[in-house]
Parts: sequence; C-alpha cells; structure tokens
Amino acid sequence: MSLLCVGSVAYDVIELPGRPAVEVLGGSATWFTTAAGFYTRPQLVGVVGDDFREDDIEFLRARGVDVGGLERKPGSTFRWHGRYHENLISRDSLKTELGVFAEFSPVIPPEWRRPDVLFLGNIHPSLQALVLAQCRDAGFVALDTIECWIESAKADLIRLLPRIDLLFLNDDEVRQLTGEHHLPTAARAILAMGAKALVLKRGEHGASLWTSSGVALVPAWPVDSMVDPTGAGDCFAGGTLGYIDLVKDTSPESLRRALAVGTVTASFCVEGFGPRSLGSVRPAQVSERLRRWLEAVSVDGAKVLGDLEIG
Amino acid sequence: MSLLCVGSVAYDVIELPGRPAVEVLGGSATWFTTAAGFYTRPQLVGVVGDDFREDDIEFLRARGVDVGGLERKPGSTFRWHGRYHENLISRDSLKTELGVFAEFSPVIPPEWRRPDVLFLGNIHPSLQALVLAQCRDAGFVALDTIECWIESAKADLIRLLPRIDLLFLNDDEVRQLTGEHHLPTAARAILAMGAKALVLKRGEHGASLWTSSGVALVPAWPVDSMVDPTGAGDCFAGGTLGYIDLVKDTSPESLRRALAVGTVTASFCVEGFGPRSLGSVRPAQVSERLRRWLEAVSVDGAKVLGDLEIG
Repeated sequence: MSLLCVGSVAYDVIELPGRPAVEVLGGSATWFTTAAGFYTRPQLVGVVGDDFREDDIEFLRARGVDVGGLERKPGSTFRWHGRYHENLISRDSLKTELGVFAEFSPVIPPEWRRPDVLFLGNIHPSLQALVLAQCRDAGFVALDTIECWIESAKADLIRLLPRIDLLFLNDDEVRQLTGEHHLPTAARAILAMGAKALVLKRGEHGASLWTSSGVALVPAWPVDSMVDPTGAGDCFAGGTLGYIDLVKDTSPESLRRALAVGTVTASFCVEGFGPRSLGSVRPAQVSERLRRWLEAVSVDGAKVLGDLEIG
Repeated sequence: MSLLCVGSVAYDVIELPGRPAVEVLGGSATWFTTAAGFYTRPQLVGVVGDDFREDDIEFLRARGVDVGGLERKPGSTFRWHGRYHENLISRDSLKTELGVFAEFSPVIPPEWRRPDVLFLGNIHPSLQALVLAQCRDAGFVALDTIECWIESAKADLIRLLPRIDLLFLNDDEVRQLTGEHHLPTAARAILAMGAKALVLKRGEHGASLWTSSGVALVPAWPVDSMVDPTGAGDCFAGGTLGYIDLVKDTSPESLRRALAVGTVTASFCVEGFGPRSLGSVRPAQVSERLRRWLEAVSVDGAKVLGDLEIG
C-alpha cells in the first residue's frame, strides 16, 4: 500500500485569543501525514528551508512518515502568521512568507510515481497538475484547495476536476467554485464538473459526502475542548485517506467509513496545539472515540421504518 | 395515546428576500400539531381572536388535530411580522402584536390532563408552569422556549427544568441559559440543572441529543430548496413527539429514532411556505425521505472497527 501526499511544510505563528503568539510546526502536508500516520505509512513530498529543524524531521519519521521526498533548499521555510478570533473559527492571516515554498516545483521520486492513493494538498493548482502529470497511474486521487486558488486560478483548478476521485472543499469554497449558494445544488454542480466525489466540510458541524449514488451525512464529534482548529481540514483528509490506503477499497461504502475515521481523527487535532500534540494521541484513543462516534450516529432504521409502517 | 400541545396560534406576516410580505397561518402550536399530525392525533390548547378564520380551524381539524382546547376570545389573533435576510436564516422581527395572546392563561380541558406526552411550546415560562400544574400526571414532558424568555424569565424557566424530560434549545439559547460558550459543556450543564434530556438544535446542521447515557448525533437532511425556515423548530419537535406518542417508548434509543423522524419532518417544513404546504406532504413522502436519511447516516461500524483491529 502507498499513500503519497504533496503539500506545504511550514512553521505557523499562531495567536489564540488572549494568548501570546507561538511558533509551531505546520503546513498541509505535515498535518495530513501526521494524521494518516495512525493508519498507514504516508510518503511526503514538500520543501523546507535550511532553517527547518532536524527534530521536526525526526518527529515526522517517528510518526512513520517517509520523508524521502522532502527537499531542503537554501532560504527560509514557509511561515504563516494567523490570529484567531474569540470564536476559534474565523481568523486573520497577519503574514505569509513563502520563503523556499515560492519556488516549489514538486518532483516525485521515480519509485513513488504509482501511489495507490495520492493527496494533492493545498498548493497552486498548476503545481497540483504537475504532480498529476508525474503520477498518471495513481490509483485514487484526492485534492484539497483554498479560496485563494479558486479566486486566482479557477480555470487551472476546474481542468483538474475530471481527474479527481475525492475533492475536499468547505461550504464557502463550494459556493465560490460553482457560483451556487444552495449547498446541495453546488455539490451536484461539482460532480457535474467531473469530480467523482465531493467531501463538503463544515468544520464543527461535520461533513457530507456527495457521489452519483447519493449523499452520506457525517456529523463531527463534539469535542471536550476546542484548543486550536489549525490543521483540522488536513487531518480530516489524512484520516480519511489513511484509512482508504489501509483497506484498499474505494467503494462509496468504504468512503463513508473513511470519512468517519477522518472526522474522528480531526477531532483530536482541534483538541491540541500543533502536530506533536496529535502525534501523542494513542491509536487506542482514536479507536475508542470512533466506537463512541459510531454509537452516537447509530439509529435502528428497520425499527423506525416499521413503526411508520413502511418496513 | 395522547399528545397535548400548548402554545401560540398566530398569523405571521413574512417577508422573504425580494418578495412582498405575505400573511400566513403560524404559531408554535400550529406548526407543532401540523407536523405531529403525520404520526398521531395531537390535542391543541391555545387562544385566537375573533378574526381567526374558520377555514384555518378546518385545516387543523383536517390534519387530525383536536382543537377542543382552542379558545376564541374577542380581539385580535397574535400577529408576528418578520423579515428574513438573504441567507434565509437570520431575520428581523418588525412587529409583534400579542392581541388576545397577551392575556392567554391556558386552561387544560379536564379530560386532557393526563397526556402521555405534553409539549410546552414557546410561551412565558410562568404559563408553562401553569400548564404543568394542571397536568401533574403527564407521562413525558417536553419544553421549547426562546431567547426572550431566557432573558426576561430565566429563574422561572430554570425552576421548570427538573420536570422536563426533553428540552429543545438552539445553540444560542443553550449558551444564554448556562453562560457556557462551549456547547458540550453547556449541554452537560443543562442536564445538571435537572432536564433529563436536551435536544441541541442547530438548524441546517442538524441536532444532537444529550442524556446521562451519552450523545446522539442527528444530521439534518440537505433539502433540495430552502423556501422559508419559519416553524422548523416546532416541526422538529412535532415530528419527534408525534413519533414518541405513536410508539409509546421514551427510552434513549427511542428518542434517537424520534429525532430522526423530527429532523426529516422539519425538512419538509423549510421546503414550503406555511403550515398548509407542510400539510400537503403525503405520509409516503415523509417515509421515503426518512429511508433515504437512514441510508445517508448508516456506516458499517463493525467493519471499520475491525479494519482498525479493535473489532
């Protein structure tokens, strides 16, 4: 099995309400692989500067991440400085210093070019296309993006959709990409644009999965304490695709189970600060919360349909 | 079986974005009983003025509602005038004319004082207490309220909670009543205040059920078109309690099934305009959507737990 992730590796400077700014390891590929590491041994392609700390590479290695595709270049690692509002959902980007990431042109190691699962993390759509061109035989391709790329590189992004098996977007992004406000309509428009399945992410409210065979509803686990939402979307994708890579089943039923794993994995992300916090969660804790989540969503359908006499 | 509802019966003047104001039958008890009418024959206690139209009473009767507790008094029926914002969620109350509702003092017909299920719709908590005093032997008591009463009559409301088997509140109301921002903490605080179960309503995002035995997560059905959200909360309660009255089972497992019925019932409310629109939905349509909802939330838990090797 193989799960390849291409995305950013960064240092984030994060200001939570009423707390001083703290610099912490971040980036979409970092979060994704840390999360996927619960279920498989992900391969990471990204770039860092010469200021990137060896112990951060060591952390990823210890998580089971193959960092053989992590380039080190002269210059600074990508840095993002964000300040969260009181609600811990909305935030301001105070500073974005791309550093060596500005010139990032992903080169996939030749032996990694036929991944079972490929995750195109949040980078410019033209770079995502470049990765796809190198991985023509990827088995299952997932893509994440952000509003900034939908705004500035919409055509590039749309061209990719027919190659995408699973697209991760939040509600604003779905609306922005389709011009449709009503989410079910927008979701169906995304499928009409060629993506085979859409995960519509709604943060603390959970997610839904849209495919030609219908919709699956995946509520989020109500976490005991919300510390920092940074990375939640990438952890959701990492848990989802880590499970897909583990079970080698990309049927709609398997995708539902994968999203359950994804949402539970992400719930641990928001309860802590930084990828190391997520890395300290034991697999047994994840399984136990998944068991509780499954209990929380289970309904005796046959009983209730029978009660209403349609059996 | 018997389901008694006490609440408002009103005329709403509703302005949807870009549309002229339209007057339509409304009120918490009207919506509640119209929804519950899919599953049982609810009894309604309320008050209307001498301007209340006979065909509106006829509509309720035709829905299977027992209007034997609907008083008619000299004066005007309660009127609410609301204007929805573009998002069809937030709204401004432009005018509230209580009319005969200002002097409403519910008198429960003697033969209705031992209902299997009692719904205390959104009226002043002291009136809800008055109803409870008349129905000491009610089997199962549910209560709904709004921010206005939490603000102006918090102590009255809190005194009622130990008598409540199922409390319906949205996220703002839960926070306002407990002073806790974090919803799971707030939900547990509500249970500590004496309510046996809490339904935390989150509109288009669905709901969750909190009891001492844990949480159930109930996502909302993604409706094809959102027309008017007025009455959705009362329809959710009406569907939930209509099912409870039908099956005579108030176990936590039955409550979960009831919430599934409630959320599906409410999904038809928001797709139309006014209770007559809901009343024109066929029971087979409700059952069919419930079947699709159950499919949308179903996950093979044993399989996914087995895949993660905890079985």
